[in-house]
Order: sequence, then structure tokens, then C-alpha cells
Amino acid sequence: MKAFAVDLGGTHITVAVVEDRQIVASQTIGQPPAAGLRPLLPLLAATLRDLSNCSTRGITDVAGIALGFCGIVDSRAGRVQSTNGKYPDAAEIDFHSWSRENFDLPLRLENDARMALMGEHYAGAAEGFQDVAMVTLGTGIGSAVMIEGKLLQGKHGQAGSLGGHVPVVLQGRACTCGGEGCAESEASGWALPRLCQSWANFPQSELAGQEINFANLFRCAASGDPIAKAIQQHCMDVWVATGVALVHAYDPELLVFGGGVMRSAEVILPYLQAHIPGRVWTPWGKVQIRSARPGNESALLGAIPMLSTSPSDVRTNVR
Amino acid sequence: MKAFAVDLGGTHITVAVVEDRQIVASQTIGQPPAAGLRPLLPLLAATLRDLSNCSTRGITDVAGIALGFCGIVDSRAGRVQSTNGKYPDAAEIDFHSWSRENFDLPLRLENDARMALMGEHYAGAAEGFQDVAMVTLGTGIGSAVMIEGKLLQGKHGQAGSLGGHVPVVLQGRACTCGGEGCAESEASGWALPRLCQSWANFPQSELAGQEINFANLFRCAASGDPIAKAIQQHCMDVWVATGVALVHAYDPELLVFGGGVMRSAEVILPYLQAHIPGRVWTPWGKVQIRSARPGNESALLGAIPMLSTSPSDVRTNVR
Repeated sequence: MKAFAVDLGGTHITVAVVEDRQIVASQTIGQPPAAGLRPLLPLLAATLRDLSNCSTRGITDVAGIALGFCGIVDSRAGRVQSTNGKYPDAAEIDFHSWSRENFDLPLRLENDARMALMGEHYAGAAEGFQDVAMVTLGTGIGSAVMIEGKLLQGKHGQAGSLGGHVPVVLQGRACTCGGEGCAESEASGWALPRLCQSWANFPQSELAGQEINFANLFRCAASGDPIAKAIQQHCMDVWVATGVALVHAYDPELLVFGGGVMRSAEVILPYLQAHIPGRVWTPWGKVQIRSARPGNESALLGAIPMLSTSPSDVRTNVR
Repeated sequence: MKAFAVDLGGTHITVAVVEDRQIVASQTIGQPPAAGLRPLLPLLAATLRDLSNCSTRGITDVAGIALGFCGIVDSRAGRVQSTNGKYPDAAEIDFHSWSRENFDLPLRLENDARMALMGEHYAGAAEGFQDVAMVTLGTGIGSAVMIEGKLLQGKHGQAGSLGGHVPVVLQGRACTCGGEGCAESEASGWALPRLCQSWANFPQSELAGQEINFANLFRCAASGDPIAKAIQQHCMDVWVATGVALVHAYDPELLVFGGGVMRSAEVILPYLQAHIPGRVWTPWGKVQIRSARPGNESALLGAIPMLSTSPSDVRTNVR
């Protein structure tokens, strides 16, 4: 099967043509302007057309468009529910009509972390597992949960998606969701500059003279900067707490960590593996902790399972 | 329908005869000795026989025994999975054989908070709701989750049960589950004495001269004792964080708080209602927060739905 995949992340949009377990071609549209998503739709359509011209026999053999969105998505209703600041107009966009009008193709919409989990289950770290929780560490912190082989959705489509907003620090930093001490407000891409600026003696850190992002934080920490090391430690402890929370909440056999921050997986993954299993009550055995495919490959490959099952199969959770 | 209900809590065992929405008769066996559960089984059987002699036409019209246990229960397999210190021998007890041999009755086993949620759904605060998370504040902190009308169970039967072990305080107090900063290790009946003893200036509190329990804590706080007020505040903030965690994890329409600590519901419930809804991301509307039936009534009434549906209905969650 061949499909168009669109990953609408917080700081980038990636479009791709995927075929079975392979990403045939992909292109990333850089930092989108704050104006919203609607003005970007013509560019998105043009990029998909370019890709299909280069890499497929037109779009005649493309099964459909799978779109992962960085917000709360009701995949059963096929619409964005809430955007928490990113792409504020997304809830009003009729993606299905857009897809029909531009490509005459069916479209499936899902939360981006759920799409990534579907990709990992189809062709990644979660192949062969039926009970998995996934965390995506990026601009925000997303999550998705599969129980007995089905994605957990919940009454309003948001169960399993908000692992980044499970509070882990009592009276911690305020979050855009309304909460405080969420993993996302303590240790995500958008929260990192604020975290650093408020850290004691931060101006003495090597990182203070650089763009504040996780790549630079991990580099400064690796070079021995004590303040960067302490901030890195805080973030990793928050991710451990989130992992513990997901194990206790959903009873998975496997935790998969993905997202752009996992470019530092060589530091993060051993830490998670060392600290999560000892802090969870799992009389059945030991929870496995794995790294997702690099970059947003998992989300892009999620297009195939998204489009290859019937809506009633994909979209229903508990019944 | 008439049933025997057994609530095996951390500090008490209550046995009852229930008929539809009524508790016909009940008896509480006080603080069980630490020796384990097996030595108590003859007393349990004798108490059930006493109750049935007083209140029913023998046991001829009793449908079965429903047993709620304060630990991880695999209700599909019908066994206790793990006990975290309480009744360490429970995992080896064959409750079904015990019930057959003593009463020739079928037995259903469930986690005590799940049994309470079934009772609330059948005849309490959750009547008419299909998407509910319940928290029981007692010796420990239990939880249970219903999604689309079905109890969430998970791969190993523990999904939804461990809301008390979702960490809410980063680098918080060590918990018996292996974690740290769990709601249960920060604000449960067993944790309260340790919390108080480590609180700054606790010897100056009125509570220091009394048995340390939530009833006395809330009384001292109400009389203006500033240290008791601060400890009460900490506990209520922990319960708010747990409520936020459950809303973000499971997407319920309703949170129900029960357990012995809710004898102080007149203080606790308004606090939860004031602080949880503003801290959760619920674009669909406002989550409701309610108090459970008093005492362990909800668990006892849970016996009726536990025994009136087929094992495959009751015991299956996601499919």
C-alpha cells in the first residue's frame, strides 16, 4: 500500500509518500508562521503533488492521506478538538473536504503521538506488542496508548493523549493546559528556555550564550557544565516520572520514547531503563523501555495502518 | 438479586448481605492481625453464615459471593496478583474453592476500588455515567476506571487500579510500591503519621498529642492549628493532582472520590471541585466531581453488578 503521510508538529510540517514499511520520499516545511494552518494548506497540497510527481505514478496508486496533528483529535469524528495554541484555526478546518477537493482521496486524522504509536506497532519498536504506551518528547510532550491491540480513545477522544499533562511536580511550573507541574511545562522543548532562565546561576552556564534547546543542553552537559548537567537531570527525572505514571495508569508491557529530543537517546534511554523499572509495581514482570525510530519516521509510517484498517476498527477503542 | 459482599480493606473486613440497591445486614471484623488472610477465612465464613441466618432465608436465595480486595486483582483469572504488604498470603488462596466448599456458591473477585466503582455506577454517584474515574482515599489510595461503560483492566489486570501510585511529587516520599512521591506515600492513611513526624515543628501541633489519623488532622485544622492546616493543605493538593492525573489519563466525564477519608467530604469535596476543573484540559466541557456513598457502601453494593453480569462482560475491558 502507498499513502501520503502528513506530520503536523509544533515546529515543523513533514509530508511524505510512504509505501508499506518504507518512506519513499519526504519533505519538511520549516517553522510555520503563527498565523494558523489554513494559509498553509495550498503549500501543503503543492508539496504533496511535488512528492507524488517525483516518486509515484502520479497519485493513482495512493490509498489516501493520513494526517497526524499535534493536539487533541477526535479521530472517530475526524476532527481536531483542541489545539492549545498551536494552529488555533485547525478545529474549524474540514480536512476531509480539502483532501477530496485537492486529491480526490480519503483522509484519516489522528493525534500525532497516536499516529507515531501506530507506526511503531506496524514497523518499529512495538512490533508484536499489544499493550504499549508511547511518549513523544518534542516541542510538547505527547503520548498514546494501545491496550490489547487497540488505541485507547476515551469518551471525548483524549484518553492516552495527555501523558505530557499528567502532573509530576506538586505546585510546579504553570502549563498552557491550565495545570501546573505537568511534564510538558517542566521538561519540553517549549518549556526549556523558561526552565533555564529561572534556574539558579543560569547566566554562568555555557548554555546561556547559546540558543536554548535540548541539543545544546545535552552538549553542554556532556562537556561538564554543572548547571547544564543539573537541568538535564531535572528533565530526565521528569521523564522517568512520566514513564512511571504511564506504566501505573495503563499496564503496558512496553514503553516507547520518541520525538526529537530522543536524538540524545544514548544519554536518555539508559537513564529511563535504569530508573523506571525499579519504581513501578509490576508483579507480572519487567516493563520494557525502548527508543522509537529516529525523527518522525514512526509517525510517517503510521499512515499505512491508519489507512489500511476500516474506520470502525481504527477509531474505536473500548467497547 | 441477593448477594454476599465482602470488602477486604487495609484495616478492616466488612461482610454484608445486599439485595439490589440495599445493604440488608452488615458486620465489620476489626483490625485483622498481620499474620495474613488464611487464618481469618473460618471467621469470615462464620460471619457470613451468621448474617445469612439473621437476614435471609438461609442462603438459598443468595446468588454468590462478591469479594473486593485491597491489592492488584486479575478479575479475569479470578486471583489476587499482588498485595503490597497487606495479606501477603492472598495470592495463594483459592477463593473459588473456599466459596464452593463453605457455601456452594460462585464467587467473583475484584479490586476493592473497582468493586466500589461498580457500586457507584449501579446505585450511587455514577448512575447514568459511562466514563468515570473513582479514587478511594483510605489506608491506601485506590482507583478504578470505567470507559464507555466497561471497567478498564489492561494486559495484567492492573490498568486503572494504581491511580494512588501515579507520582505527583518529584523526588517525593518513598512508597511501598517502589516509587516515590506517589499520592499514596504523600497523603494516605498509612503515610499520614510519617508525613506528620517529618513536618517542620510538628511537635508544636495539637495533633502531636493524639493518634495521627485524618479525622484528628481535620479536627485540629478546623480548630485553627496552623501546622495541622498546612498538612491538610498538602494532602488536599496531592488529591487535586491525582484527580488531574486521572482526568488527563482516562478522559472521564465524572470523578468520584470515596473511602474513609471522605468522612471529611464537607472540607475535601469543595476543595477538589474548586481546583481540579481549572487545571484540566477538557475542551469538551467541565468534568464533574462527586462524593461517593458513605463508608464502604459503594463497595458492598458493587456485589450486585459483579454477580449479575457474565464473567466475560464484567471481566473484559478493551477489545
